[in-house]
Amino acid sequence: MKIRVAVLGATGTVGQRFIQLLDGHPWFEVTALIGSERSAGRPYADVTRWMLDTPIPAAVRAMEILPEDAPLDTPLVFSALPSKTARPIEERLAAAGHVVCTNASDLRMDPDVPLLIPEVNPDHLELIAVQRRRRGWSGAIVANSNCTATGPTITLRPLHDAFGVTRLLLVSMQALSGAGYPGVPSYDLMENIIPFIGGEEPKVETEPQKMLGTLRDEAIEPAPFALSAHCNRVPVLEGHLECLSLAFARRPAQDELVAALRTFRALPQELNLPSAPPQPIIVRDEPDRPQPRRDRDAGRGMSTVVGRIRPCPILDYKLVCLSHNTIRGAAGGSVLNAELMYAQGMLNG
Amino acid sequence: MKIRVAVLGATGTVGQRFIQLLDGHPWFEVTALIGSERSAGRPYADVTRWMLDTPIPAAVRAMEILPEDAPLDTPLVFSALPSKTARPIEERLAAAGHVVCTNASDLRMDPDVPLLIPEVNPDHLELIAVQRRRRGWSGAIVANSNCTATGPTITLRPLHDAFGVTRLLLVSMQALSGAGYPGVPSYDLMENIIPFIGGEEPKVETEPQKMLGTLRDEAIEPAPFALSAHCNRVPVLEGHLECLSLAFARRPAQDELVAALRTFRALPQELNLPSAPPQPIIVRDEPDRPQPRRDRDAGRGMSTVVGRIRPCPILDYKLVCLSHNTIRGAAGGSVLNAELMYAQGMLNG
Amino acid sequence: MKIRVAVLGATGTVGQRFIQLLDGHPWFEVTALIGSERSAGRPYADVTRWMLDTPIPAAVRAMEILPEDAPLDTPLVFSALPSKTARPIEERLAAAGHVVCTNASDLRMDPDVPLLIPEVNPDHLELIAVQRRRRGWSGAIVANSNCTATGPTITLRPLHDAFGVTRLLLVSMQALSGAGYPGVPSYDLMENIIPFIGGEEPKVETEPQKMLGTLRDEAIEPAPFALSAHCNRVPVLEGHLECLSLAFARRPAQDELVAALRTFRALPQELNLPSAPPQPIIVRDEPDRPQPRRDRDAGRGMSTVVGRIRPCPILDYKLVCLSHNTIRGAAGGSVLNAELMYAQGMLNG
Amino acid sequence: MKIRVAVLGATGTVGQRFIQLLDGHPWFEVTALIGSERSAGRPYADVTRWMLDTPIPAAVRAMEILPEDAPLDTPLVFSALPSKTARPIEERLAAAGHVVCTNASDLRMDPDVPLLIPEVNPDHLELIAVQRRRRGWSGAIVANSNCTATGPTITLRPLHDAFGVTRLLLVSMQALSGAGYPGVPSYDLMENIIPFIGGEEPKVETEPQKMLGTLRDEAIEPAPFALSAHCNRVPVLEGHLECLSLAFARRPAQDELVAALRTFRALPQELNLPSAPPQPIIVRDEPDRPQPRRDRDAGRGMSTVVGRIRPCPILDYKLVCLSHNTIRGAAGGSVLNAELMYAQGMLNG
Repeated sequence: MKIRVAVLGATGTVGQRFIQLLDGHPWFEVTALIGSERSAGRPYADVTRWMLDTPIPAAVRAMEILPEDAPLDTPLVFSALPSKTARPIEERLAAAGHVVCTNASDLRMDPDVPLLIPEVNPDHLELIAVQRRRRGWSGAIVANSNCTATGPTITLRPLHDAFGVTRLLLVSMQALSGAGYPGVPSYDLMENIIPFIGGEEPKVETEPQKMLGTLRDEAIEPAPFALSAHCNRVPVLEGHLECLSLAFARRPAQDELVAALRTFRALPQELNLPSAPPQPIIVRDEPDRPQPRRDRDAGRGMSTVVGRIRPCPILDYKLVCLSHNTIRGAAGGSVLNAELMYAQGMLNG
Repeated sequence: MKIRVAVLGATGTVGQRFIQLLDGHPWFEVTALIGSERSAGRPYADVTRWMLDTPIPAAVRAMEILPEDAPLDTPLVFSALPSKTARPIEERLAAAGHVVCTNASDLRMDPDVPLLIPEVNPDHLELIAVQRRRRGWSGAIVANSNCTATGPTITLRPLHDAFGVTRLLLVSMQALSGAGYPGVPSYDLMENIIPFIGGEEPKVETEPQKMLGTLRDEAIEPAPFALSAHCNRVPVLEGHLECLSLAFARRPAQDELVAALRTFRALPQELNLPSAPPQPIIVRDEPDRPQPRRDRDAGRGMSTVVGRIRPCPILDYKLVCLSHNTIRGAAGGSVLNAELMYAQGMLNG
Repeated sequence: MKIRVAVLGATGTVGQRFIQLLDGHPWFEVTALIGSERSAGRPYADVTRWMLDTPIPAAVRAMEILPEDAPLDTPLVFSALPSKTARPIEERLAAAGHVVCTNASDLRMDPDVPLLIPEVNPDHLELIAVQRRRRGWSGAIVANSNCTATGPTITLRPLHDAFGVTRLLLVSMQALSGAGYPGVPSYDLMENIIPFIGGEEPKVETEPQKMLGTLRDEAIEPAPFALSAHCNRVPVLEGHLECLSLAFARRPAQDELVAALRTFRALPQELNLPSAPPQPIIVRDEPDRPQPRRDRDAGRGMSTVVGRIRPCPILDYKLVCLSHNTIRGAAGGSVLNAELMYAQGMLNG
Repeated sequence: MKIRVAVLGATGTVGQRFIQLLDGHPWFEVTALIGSERSAGRPYADVTRWMLDTPIPAAVRAMEILPEDAPLDTPLVFSALPSKTARPIEERLAAAGHVVCTNASDLRMDPDVPLLIPEVNPDHLELIAVQRRRRGWSGAIVANSNCTATGPTITLRPLHDAFGVTRLLLVSMQALSGAGYPGVPSYDLMENIIPFIGGEEPKVETEPQKMLGTLRDEAIEPAPFALSAHCNRVPVLEGHLECLSLAFARRPAQDELVAALRTFRALPQELNLPSAPPQPIIVRDEPDRPQPRRDRDAGRGMSTVVGRIRPCPILDYKLVCLSHNTIRGAAGGSVLNAELMYAQGMLNG
């Protein structure tokens, strides 16, 4: 018996990714699609401007869109709601006993909400007990991280454990799919770069410290490193490429640093979770990799690809990392979060 | 009477820019075009795959290409030779009494060669006397800087004077025209970023310190700041966009920093050189500027456009700067160098 | 004394082109800008997301936006209103005595409205007398043609006169600027072609016959040729490129056809109208021209560039033509229409 | 026991596709890779600049490249040689008893060489007997068609059978991968269209008639319809999109035409060949499909996708068709050719 699953915001670009990634999932089964009032009551395939390069899964084509306030019988809800509208809806669902794995940014920095990357901070799921007690509900809200913060945070996990990260300066070159649909006008992005993404840098400069932080006395103590981010939009479809300069408490030799990245395995790999990539981090040795178009699909979009590791004249090392923004950085990240909860007995059909 | 001018490497992309920018120049007149053996003896318009969006100037259409070893009667030579082949040819021309303003990288770091941006280090032209004495020639070689180093170095000039730059970390997003023609295959750059440009980072990490250095005892003492560069190729035609994080000996208030950039004027502006932009640095206040396509032509491609000035959580400030790579960063930079020499009586027809 | 001019829809992309092209115009002077209710009462530069690569003209930066129903004292109005909303507003202005040169499609096919390209059908201005009598107004409405119809219609004028066009099959590759702003999402157009533009083909298949038609008994008799159009959206900023196959009543020799195009001059060239290009049609001999990026600015965006003239195995000849869609095909076309009316004494300050 | 297979020109872009498509093939096994002199003797992975988005198959990574004149023990050879050099090498291999399935254009129009699309003209394989007798060899050469001719020819097969095609006018918008590597410079194709592809139109205007022709008295009588092609290069990675206008001996009703396309099945589908798509032609009803990026992978790149079927004011009908140029139009087409020969007992291990 699979766990019944609802997708909130099912018709948008992240909602579509949820549906694509859950098609044929061994543990989860989409049985409810929630959309806007405008589309409620109509079949999914009729109201959705499907964007992805695989067809709409047969199982949902004719499924009727439910309105936001429909009663749900699914233990698990994936939320692809836009930020700034997600909070009241997700809180209502958690209060009604649902486990909500959300891609929205609204609750990410709430002290009792796990901001989860299963390879990075699986122990933060213990916050759910705090969350339930404090909020008086039987459900739960678990957030995944900002898409631009995801790749660097996974990359930092083994480095922080081994060498103690003290400073991180990053410059992102972000794919246009991160802006949703219709998103960035082609009139703005054609043969151009936009060196600004509204609201992005504050998220990128705070989420990694929470995720790499320590759970102590029912709260997260953020990892105490400084982070500076420049965020840019580039004419690429999928895959956020980021240039990182890093300083450590103990500066490793370069081959130590490479080995720490290359040998990194974590709980999702041990548990063999369905969406876990065999290697959370893939290190490429070619001088000109990773590249968004050529490397974003590594590990079915769930691996972080790192390259160009070399000394930094200002901090200790510099490198380039790439993460698929709508798979690992959005829907795929949430699915992996739910898989971890399932494997740990936190989800009951 | 205008100064007669030769263009070396006249058929390539930088050579074309020289010819475009010199068309109708008030002081200089192209009278000789030097090309490869293959094209020598043939009319310019017949052997050139013209790339620019203005037509080939009428004055050069029918001009016959000369071979590399042709004797020249032009006091001034602009060199658009590819790096790695430029040195012997440019040295021979200087030995024959010509002033060579070169875009090639071969001699840039020679201690007795001025690496010149007229707004930054016009006093470095004094090295020519050293160069002539040491090398025993009556001509001269003056280099312009790497296209990626140009924008940041101009931006640093007023900041270094006022506050003392101690560290600079930059990430470039470089236009494809910087790779010449045929340059980057579209198969590599379509919907993609390449996080590597061969040989670029070492140049970018050393040239600014020479240009911002101090002339003392007939030598340049490099400015003593650390510089780290990540260089990326992006699908943009013209205009290098760069994200900078900066630290200073004396951290200014943000409005001091902005004022220093905005009020910066230098010798080319005082002398009213024909190619000098009214403002060497233009500061934009919009949150999403500069952008390559929309801002690269500021000051007819000779201004550096700066925006997004804000505090950096790691160094002192961060900002974005943009410079036109084939105008200010190549042919236009060389022409301005020659104009400065002319205005200072160092060029005789 | 210049003619005072109002621009309707001044903040949109076509409105911006009007303002750019009218800056420094010898005959016309923008004195009123009409915008949406939302922007009325505010300075132009504050409410406009300026898109073009030249700065906002100083003369309009601080000009206050007027609401749609403001009384106007300008004899001439340029309308950049979106189609489907233009008719009532433009008719009200004509009734109030204004000459309206419109880019909207709403009235183009009205029998008493001149659909004007000054090189093609200047005599159609005689319809204004019919229009005034029939509609009982003292103003006038003059339309310019669809941007995709413009280049082919100019190309056809000398060919139709000399050889009698009987059939035209065209496939367009249209720039994204034609969709306005925000227009086409980059998520749709990145590394892609969209083989459909809503409502475009019916316009392209009917407007040329009206423009090339004959004025007889106060009405236009359309030119009796068949026209088939396939319209595609391509990732290009400006410039509609079109592949044409043509059949004639009398099949010319190829050099006759080329000569007819190359020697074509018309009334705007005779009258030396300020926006008229010296050559309405430029024929390029290179095998791979015209190209949108390299040729769209020919004649300051007002020339049609034709190339690849060769026999067609099905109709008589095939060729490629290019026309700048937001200059000649929109604002520039309307300005030239007004210039023709001014030169013929139909506009009084 | 699988059939041993060699790939000629294994390191180029089409060679890479052969290797990708043959990985895990049920009938064929790559056992020899032939490359240039420069790469001979070295492992495949070391000398190949691998371009595709799946990794190099493990089975060939370490395989040593053989020189062109190495003796081969493979009954089957796939040739990805560049046109203009293929003929002597392929003829030598056929003379040595190999079956050569070639993607090169050199021998396509030889009267005794089958130009084969298995859904279109499987009976043309009978030419092999003629070829063997005439040329005195025991091997064979079978060509696949030009990538731009492929989609229209498949589309025409059911239409020609049912209604008799008399005229076809097509305009192609061709992906850059068709030019190989390095192929088209990004400096040429960025934000641009190139309305010319050297040598393409003559191929496109003659190959379909041969393929749709009739085998009679040991020769192909070409299908007697006129074909006119305009070929354009567009900034798309993979997938040739083409606008077609068609005339028929008997003009069908539109639903007849649609049904003929939609119900078309052919020998590869009957034989269930491993690379045969379930539907050779997929008809899409949306107004804006097919699009290269969204539809090129239909049928794993082996289906032709057709849309926008509507009457043509000049010929009878117009439509848009899309075919993956480096799968169905190159390597995949050759593999399907070999599969058909295998299924018909023409290949012996």
